[in-house]
Amino acid sequence: MKQSISEFDLIRRYFTRATPGAVLGVGDDAALLRVAGGMELAVSTDMLVSGTHFLPDADPFLLGHKALAVNLSDLAAMGAAPRWALLALSVPEADENWLQKFSAGFFACADRHGVELVGGDTTRGPLNLCVTIMGEVPQGTALRRSGAQLGDDIWVSGRLGDAALALAHLQGRVELTAEEFAACALRLHRPEPRLELGLALRGVAHSAIDISDGLLADLGHILECSNVGAGIRFDALPVSSVLRPYLAQATGKHCALAGGDDYELCFTAAVARRSAVEDISGKLDLPLSRIGTIVQDGGCTVHAADGGIIDIGESGYDHFA
Amino acid sequence: MKQSISEFDLIRRYFTRATPGAVLGVGDDAALLRVAGGMELAVSTDMLVSGTHFLPDADPFLLGHKALAVNLSDLAAMGAAPRWALLALSVPEADENWLQKFSAGFFACADRHGVELVGGDTTRGPLNLCVTIMGEVPQGTALRRSGAQLGDDIWVSGRLGDAALALAHLQGRVELTAEEFAACALRLHRPEPRLELGLALRGVAHSAIDISDGLLADLGHILECSNVGAGIRFDALPVSSVLRPYLAQATGKHCALAGGDDYELCFTAAVARRSAVEDISGKLDLPLSRIGTIVQDGGCTVHAADGGIIDIGESGYDHFA
Repeated sequence: MKQSISEFDLIRRYFTRATPGAVLGVGDDAALLRVAGGMELAVSTDMLVSGTHFLPDADPFLLGHKALAVNLSDLAAMGAAPRWALLALSVPEADENWLQKFSAGFFACADRHGVELVGGDTTRGPLNLCVTIMGEVPQGTALRRSGAQLGDDIWVSGRLGDAALALAHLQGRVELTAEEFAACALRLHRPEPRLELGLALRGVAHSAIDISDGLLADLGHILECSNVGAGIRFDALPVSSVLRPYLAQATGKHCALAGGDDYELCFTAAVARRSAVEDISGKLDLPLSRIGTIVQDGGCTVHAADGGIIDIGESGYDHFA
Repeated sequence: MKQSISEFDLIRRYFTRATPGAVLGVGDDAALLRVAGGMELAVSTDMLVSGTHFLPDADPFLLGHKALAVNLSDLAAMGAAPRWALLALSVPEADENWLQKFSAGFFACADRHGVELVGGDTTRGPLNLCVTIMGEVPQGTALRRSGAQLGDDIWVSGRLGDAALALAHLQGRVELTAEEFAACALRLHRPEPRLELGLALRGVAHSAIDISDGLLADLGHILECSNVGAGIRFDALPVSSVLRPYLAQATGKHCALAGGDDYELCFTAAVARRSAVEDISGKLDLPLSRIGTIVQDGGCTVHAADGGIIDIGESGYDHFA
């Protein structure tokens, strides 16, 4: 560990890469960007705090990946194509080994999704990672939370609840085998933003959101913004073979319905677009599951296969409640 | 103090205002913005950390102001007109009294400068304020650090060093009267971004930067980016009547040359533009002082009135060195 590196050397060494897609990147008072004609800029920011979102000894490569990936997930939910990112970083000390790994994880994710790091800030303080992500979407085509319509199918991508199951294992609430835990922990530590899906859903979905706080909480935002309700079929929820045996228990139900950190997309689309959605699933080789229907007001009801109603109490992760 | 407010109520209550200048503001996965035709987007982020940038018991109204003002100062240095901001906020608890005052300070500054808060993030953790600011500048006209030319005059706005003098008083290194301290503390706690100056300097200045880490450090960035050196006349530095008596001492010299938190602009312009700069000074009723000249390489030399050279050792604030 060294503390002698200056802030400017640190930025130069670990966070400065070529940015051919920007007019001006890292190194001035602000970056300069040109948004293509006919495009809207989609912009979002997410802050990850040590002790709240991850453990202080978390793997820095995975943290670098996750700090960017959770932001990209927001762009995916808007149907936007990622372009640029800013990174503000507070670290307790200039630990070059940590910074090298963090930066490698960040740029590995950035390179995979065509994102350029164009600016940021570094300072000393409790570990805190704040990423601002910017993307482009053709004017008027962004997917919003407010577009759900009566009768829409409700869909989710991938599998739900594995990240929460990994967390439950870490907290001693379930006991997974090493192999099971490894599979679920990958979802917790290495979420993959569903960017291709977001792009493909433009003009197909009526509304979309990414599932970061749990299905019920995030679907709840669509319902609130769209002034509608929802009926969910519990047995239609896509879950992994690791989570499935736990679904009869409260912990398993909670993972599937209210587990955070899934970073899948939840979206609604007209019944007439079912085959279009299934085509997208095939093209992207990504499971898309039809889990319920948009109804008139009344919140979200989860129906069990036996005709009963499943109520799990709290409906998602809230940092303050 | 209450801890029962949810994250979503908190955002709705304290951080959601109308955003007529955005396609979509707070409340979806991302904000949607339209950058006007022929404009470049200038974007920057600054993170303020409790214990590093301010004391934990700092006045929340002033913190709200400062978190935005220091970001606006970056846009001023680019000659960009401010448009939108994102705010990511980590707080130890949902203290509504604190949040109300912080938000009032933030929006007071935002309203004065025509900035709309279009998104952000709130979470629990050590107090940390991360603002991302976005503005517009006509293509090709932004003021950069890299444009300084041999023979340019070097100018600074306002007065230098009062913020650092207030800090020196708080740290017991000087003893100011209550009245003197109040005047200097205003500069420390309520910096005013020089946005009108930045706009007026488009087409006039060759290069610009805002002084956040001290004159020598920030001018040093212009010199490095422009591959030039500088000669500064110490007796030409604009200082207040409070700081002037301290200039003979090391503390006073350090405040004027290396004091952080001034948030004035330092810029260079051709000798032929002196009257244009003086016109701007008159129109904005803002002192603009010609403090030196851009020379060939050799770093920055500070000349005393007696012909000697002033060397203050370290040249500015660095979070890690």
